[in-house]
Amino acid sequence: MNFELLQKQADTLRFLSADMIQRANSGHPGAPLGLADILVVLSFHLKHNPKNPSWLNRDRLVFSGGHASALLYSFLHLSGYDLSLDELKNFRQLHSKAPGHPEISTCGVEIATGPLGQGVANAVGFALAAKKAQSLLGSELINHKVYCFCGDGDLEEGISYEACSLAGLHKLDNLILIYDSNAISIEGDVSLAFNENIKMRFEAQGFSVQEINGHDFDAINNAFELAKLSKRPNLIIAKTIIAKGALELEGSHHSHGAPLGVELIKRAKAKAHFDENQEFFISQEVKFAFSVALELGDLEEAKWQDLLEKSGKKDLLERLLKPNFNEVVYPDFKGKSVATRDSNGEILNAIAAKIEGFLGGSADLAPSNKTELKGMGDFIEGKNIHFGIREHAMAAINNALARYGLFVPFSATFFIFSEYLKPAARLSALMKLRHYFIFTHDSIGVGEDGPTHQPIEQLSTFRAMPNFLTFRPADGVENLKAWQFALAQDLPCAFVLSRQKLEALNEGIFGDVKNGAYLLKEADNASITLLASGSEVSLCLQTAKLLESKGERVNVVSMPCYELFEKQDKSYQERLLKGEVIGVEAAHSNELYKFCDRVFGIESFGESGKDKAVFEYFGFEPNKLCEFVLKR
Amino acid sequence: MNFELLQKQADTLRFLSADMIQRANSGHPGAPLGLADILVVLSFHLKHNPKNPSWLNRDRLVFSGGHASALLYSFLHLSGYDLSLDELKNFRQLHSKAPGHPEISTCGVEIATGPLGQGVANAVGFALAAKKAQSLLGSELINHKVYCFCGDGDLEEGISYEACSLAGLHKLDNLILIYDSNAISIEGDVSLAFNENIKMRFEAQGFSVQEINGHDFDAINNAFELAKLSKRPNLIIAKTIIAKGALELEGSHHSHGAPLGVELIKRAKAKAHFDENQEFFISQEVKFAFSVALELGDLEEAKWQDLLEKSGKKDLLERLLKPNFNEVVYPDFKGKSVATRDSNGEILNAIAAKIEGFLGGSADLAPSNKTELKGMGDFIEGKNIHFGIREHAMAAINNALARYGLFVPFSATFFIFSEYLKPAARLSALMKLRHYFIFTHDSIGVGEDGPTHQPIEQLSTFRAMPNFLTFRPADGVENLKAWQFALAQDLPCAFVLSRQKLEALNEGIFGDVKNGAYLLKEADNASITLLASGSEVSLCLQTAKLLESKGERVNVVSMPCYELFEKQDKSYQERLLKGEVIGVEAAHSNELYKFCDRVFGIESFGESGKDKAVFEYFGFEPNKLCEFVLKR
Repeated sequence: MNFELLQKQADTLRFLSADMIQRANSGHPGAPLGLADILVVLSFHLKHNPKNPSWLNRDRLVFSGGHASALLYSFLHLSGYDLSLDELKNFRQLHSKAPGHPEISTCGVEIATGPLGQGVANAVGFALAAKKAQSLLGSELINHKVYCFCGDGDLEEGISYEACSLAGLHKLDNLILIYDSNAISIEGDVSLAFNENIKMRFEAQGFSVQEINGHDFDAINNAFELAKLSKRPNLIIAKTIIAKGALELEGSHHSHGAPLGVELIKRAKAKAHFDENQEFFISQEVKFAFSVALELGDLEEAKWQDLLEKSGKKDLLERLLKPNFNEVVYPDFKGKSVATRDSNGEILNAIAAKIEGFLGGSADLAPSNKTELKGMGDFIEGKNIHFGIREHAMAAINNALARYGLFVPFSATFFIFSEYLKPAARLSALMKLRHYFIFTHDSIGVGEDGPTHQPIEQLSTFRAMPNFLTFRPADGVENLKAWQFALAQDLPCAFVLSRQKLEALNEGIFGDVKNGAYLLKEADNASITLLASGSEVSLCLQTAKLLESKGERVNVVSMPCYELFEKQDKSYQERLLKGEVIGVEAAHSNELYKFCDRVFGIESFGESGKDKAVFEYFGFEPNKLCEFVLKR
Repeated sequence: MNFELLQKQADTLRFLSADMIQRANSGHPGAPLGLADILVVLSFHLKHNPKNPSWLNRDRLVFSGGHASALLYSFLHLSGYDLSLDELKNFRQLHSKAPGHPEISTCGVEIATGPLGQGVANAVGFALAAKKAQSLLGSELINHKVYCFCGDGDLEEGISYEACSLAGLHKLDNLILIYDSNAISIEGDVSLAFNENIKMRFEAQGFSVQEINGHDFDAINNAFELAKLSKRPNLIIAKTIIAKGALELEGSHHSHGAPLGVELIKRAKAKAHFDENQEFFISQEVKFAFSVALELGDLEEAKWQDLLEKSGKKDLLERLLKPNFNEVVYPDFKGKSVATRDSNGEILNAIAAKIEGFLGGSADLAPSNKTELKGMGDFIEGKNIHFGIREHAMAAINNALARYGLFVPFSATFFIFSEYLKPAARLSALMKLRHYFIFTHDSIGVGEDGPTHQPIEQLSTFRAMPNFLTFRPADGVENLKAWQFALAQDLPCAFVLSRQKLEALNEGIFGDVKNGAYLLKEADNASITLLASGSEVSLCLQTAKLLESKGERVNVVSMPCYELFEKQDKSYQERLLKGEVIGVEAAHSNELYKFCDRVFGIESFGESGKDKAVFEYFGFEPNKLCEFVLKR
């Protein structure tokens, strides 16, 4: 290795990052400067094709600490990705391709990171995806690695332990985590809050662990060589100095989240034999050293295309890349009273039977969520992923599966535990991933397990999240239509499903599930409209009868998807909603006021008791609802 | 030890639990039967006073797996707590004192558990609370232990790793975790999803670990003896058989979550030499063996009261038990333009300066959250808790601090990361704990860090949660009034605070912060009312001027707390809201439709850029808002 050149490459990454942050007057220089040496060495190991960032067998590179984005962007630019120096100069400005934290709209960014811990779980997800891809396409076509930079914060977050536990379980030898161990946190020395024996912790989870000086090129290189040969998932503990190269700010927590200062950057450049008066400087020599990636990448991919031609796997790959959901043979729920968790289980099985890349699992609740893909075996060979009781890692891992390019994953748990995975669901929405969430046990209908297990505010949470569709179907037919609509979108969707049996509805009168809400029952010149979702729809039908016996004229609207109904034009909404509009949901659903004059919901936590008793207690039975409606 | 009697005691717990679940036809027999032997031995170690469940120096007993509630209730009943056999017979029925998962309304239940992992973090919180209490009151008065039963699911959840990491950091030798290692999960054998080396994992976190047969009375007893002497936090790995004593269901995952069946219970009773025809049977001998706790507890507490009298700590204890917030000398923010994170920091410091039990910390963001309690030192000796980047454990630990009886804790992080702790915030609300959440960086005003760091749907989430107040003050004065109101409630509250400076408001015209919303500016016969919170309030004042220059008559309402405004009577609300009511919030706040005709919010994720540029891009500037208002 040419140490002198390596140093220049690393320092170029450093000063590009420092200049970006300085110009933006915002950002995080500590990690980029601390990690530059490792990234330069990694660049010699990384198999990728900057001209085709979506080449399937590329190594995946994840920066779990998304605040090190300046380093990532500098590296992508130097490696020849479609990310110009002007974009780097525009770092952190509105609509820049170099936003504050990595987003997938930037060429070469594998996955959006930022909230700590997510990237580690994403990396585990990429590694699991690669294993699955390998089992389908063979190890000649899929043999790449997944590299992930993470820091103290990532390793403090619970999601990282959850994900690494699964990495160990599945012996993911394609996973190489690089732990930027700089001993610094925002509040000061990391030992204030973190004194685990990291080596022992990861060995307990089945990892192979190395410890190196993260500024010693030779040691870094050897560590990557060894890790690539390991039969277990890898952790490289790299002892680093935060803001390495930033003179008196080296090793200081003040370098984490604020620009280094023009004057200090100048002195640092001078000390590294860079021209202190040049910003965003890249020497020809350094440019050339990084741009080797372009030709090597092209060559690698060309060889791979040859292999693909000869592999007999082209058709399968095509189907994985572009699943044809029209081939699915769906069950028929017309006239059948089912718990929607049951109808949903049948739908999942129908899809998985035809679509190779459709798979998923539950956080140890498959028998209750009804998500077992029957006869389809256990992951990795099969399709059923046993996530254990790790909702958060499950969702972040499935984000990576969805982002990998070949898979359409689902994550399942009780609706109440959606809270444990919400941060990862948010990132699925930010990236508009096809990732489906199966949330059963959708309301106080959970019954005896009581308030800790009964969702109240969760519908509001998911409905308020952008780029996300929350379906709460009222019967099997709605459940099926919701899936058919969902599969045609490029968005994550949740299916919020009942534990208890629901009455089969009659066909709608106007509109359909795809409109978010539709007319289920219509009265001439209606004086009242009852609008509901899920289990409350048939309650509204019963209550409508009661109201009509008292001389009211009642419309009933089923609203399986609030977000879709919001998007309908005014005239559609007005066609459905006549007279006084009353929302009915066994939840705290104040967002219904967007369409309703009054809402019959739940303003407290639930109660432990038989589901019917609990529903009655909260007034979800025709007489009490009728009384509410008439109390104008 | 009288093994024969111990066995009878354990079997009595088993069959009480089995009978409860059978009668309810709902519940989880596996864990109660598996843990009965350990609980009987623990009963000889446990220091508590069933006649006074709130005796301060009692040992705390936490069932992290709240689904084992039948065992806990059986034990509480037998130990003499105010929980009758009739309540046990009424297990899982509406309004029973024996609900599906433990709730604090039941005498003797230390904390509500159910969602897995929470109880482990609560136990760590109780142990931290005890250490803090000890440092204030001395080790003669505070020397109790914290026992916590947990299972595979608890140890799979990320929150348990986070919490145990902090237990190790603080060397909590008063903590004794008992891991019910029964090798069974809902989806089958636990090895499907969990193969960590648990001993090594906990040792890596600084624990002392023992492994025992969880059905060997001698081994169990020795383990407790050793653990009580240890200088480190303790894990006892108890190898158990799920549903021990349930004949052919022993060791089966089918015993986890469904009644055992009348016939099987009869046979199991017969095999254990119990009368197969008696339900809820407690022999005199067993009754007596357990009820020793009553007298011992009384005696222990009497001795302790003596010590207290002599300790010179009575006044301090009284102040800790009943903090007098009237003593706080608050800062004055009138006329001052401040970022509310800054005003909030001053308020926190003012409260902490006077109230001994007021303390807390941040998930490694104290310098950004402005939550450092200056000059008050680091926890345990001092008041600043360095939680590390562990939002979830932070909140669950602080739930236990709040529940301990002496402390008023706060948890701090960026508002976006409130998602990581939401499940624990929910339990604070369920228990109505005095636990304060400091959420800074409240909107797109975060700026450059971009969409992964900009809250959009979080206000809706917290507003939809029962028993919880979410304050988003518009200036320092509102911030202070919000705190003064909050401190007088028995509810958890969140303070959602700006990173950026906010204009100081003039005094209100009608109503106040305590009403949730109040009139800040009034027009005669207003044609429009603008209703906003936080940073959008001064935008509305500016926009009102613009609107008035175009001939409109505009009211401006500041709404620092949606939930409080909801609770005002109709006439109060109507007094504020005149003409067309338009909600203005830099968030996806459809719940505002409860009060508003239209809402000017954000329907997508945020953007990376300078805060002013981002606000403008989303239309949060007077001209664009004015345009929106006038486009009727």
